[in-house]
Amino acid sequence: MAQQYQFNVSTPGRGTIDITRQVEQFVRESDIQAGLANVFISHTSASLILCENADAMVRTDLESWLSRAVPDGDRLFRHTMEGPDDMPAHVRSVLTASSISIPIVNGRMALGTWQGLYLYEHRTEPHRRTIRVTMVG
Amino acid sequence: MAQQYQFNVSTPGRGTIDITRQVEQFVRESDIQAGLANVFISHTSASLILCENADAMVRTDLESWLSRAVPDGDRLFRHTMEGPDDMPAHVRSVLTASSISIPIVNGRMALGTWQGLYLYEHRTEPHRRTIRVTMVG
Amino acid sequence: MAQQYQFNVSTPGRGTIDITRQVEQFVRESDIQAGLANVFISHTSASLILCENADAMVRTDLESWLSRAVPDGDRLFRHTMEGPDDMPAHVRSVLTASSISIPIVNGRMALGTWQGLYLYEHRTEPHRRTIRVTMVG
Repeated sequence: MAQQYQFNVSTPGRGTIDITRQVEQFVRESDIQAGLANVFISHTSASLILCENADAMVRTDLESWLSRAVPDGDRLFRHTMEGPDDMPAHVRSVLTASSISIPIVNGRMALGTWQGLYLYEHRTEPHRRTIRVTMVG
Repeated sequence: MAQQYQFNVSTPGRGTIDITRQVEQFVRESDIQAGLANVFISHTSASLILCENADAMVRTDLESWLSRAVPDGDRLFRHTMEGPDDMPAHVRSVLTASSISIPIVNGRMALGTWQGLYLYEHRTEPHRRTIRVTMVG
Repeated sequence: MAQQYQFNVSTPGRGTIDITRQVEQFVRESDIQAGLANVFISHTSASLILCENADAMVRTDLESWLSRAVPDGDRLFRHTMEGPDDMPAHVRSVLTASSISIPIVNGRMALGTWQGLYLYEHRTEPHRRTIRVTMVG
């Protein structure tokens, strides 16, 4: 039987927030020893990534790359009524992920040593985001 | 026990087609109350995205961005025998998704309010595409 | 009950390696007839893609596009101590996938005719990479 949990994250605006521990806690508290933990974000202007967790500069550089590749206020975009960062946020969400499944092994999330799970807020203003974790095994 | 369904979509050429209702119907007709619905596209020049469903201009702008980032007929490409839009279609597919898992909660797909599930046809000519839905719970 | 396997791949440096057969073998050897095979890579500078398997030039062109879009040694990047290809490798991993779920139908991976599953090494030097396969059904 699948087990599901939901939690909210208040973001301070654009950038990444480590949610590894919160998801790991749900996995430990479940009785699933082997299976999958699916992490899902119910939004289209924030997303999920797995990324190196040792040097925070990696995520700063990722942000620099995305800011250059999908510039805010790009005159290419016509969906502009929600602000110059809204349409870029939708593109960034499509280029990254809304749903990531992670193996559960021996009752724990089997991430690599340097892998962290991050919520990526793409809007410049603070938002409240909802994450759902579904575990099957 | 997993439950699986398959359906075909005839695309009119490049662009997005909302498949949310078709997948939602399979989820409702299944007896899975809590779990995951995996949506999988068996092609490498069409893909899947979760995207804002309120303003269609969002997907038009996404298309504009992809057309600029991965231009048809780019002289960079050497795999050109299937047409100037074929290699860009493969790159677009890799940048988006071929497989998306969506939570099933209370027997329904738990998408966000503004989240739609779309088949993204990347070829300029019409194609017939196959989507497979696998539900586990 | 989920079934899990793990295998290592020695990469010769940047490029794609077909892992379809190895994953398919795990699926055949399992007793799951219908479900999902999740493939997960425990690294942040190598990733997974589903891509056309007929013409190897498609993956060469994909590499050309990524090399241009995320150039090695880009002065934009500040995380440079692990080499000019390290930060681009992290960006490429985020743009592609670390986790892909593939339907299992009649005890086999239900890939499309032209779909291959590839490990994508993004570092220029050889590495040893770990892939975990989790099957649920």
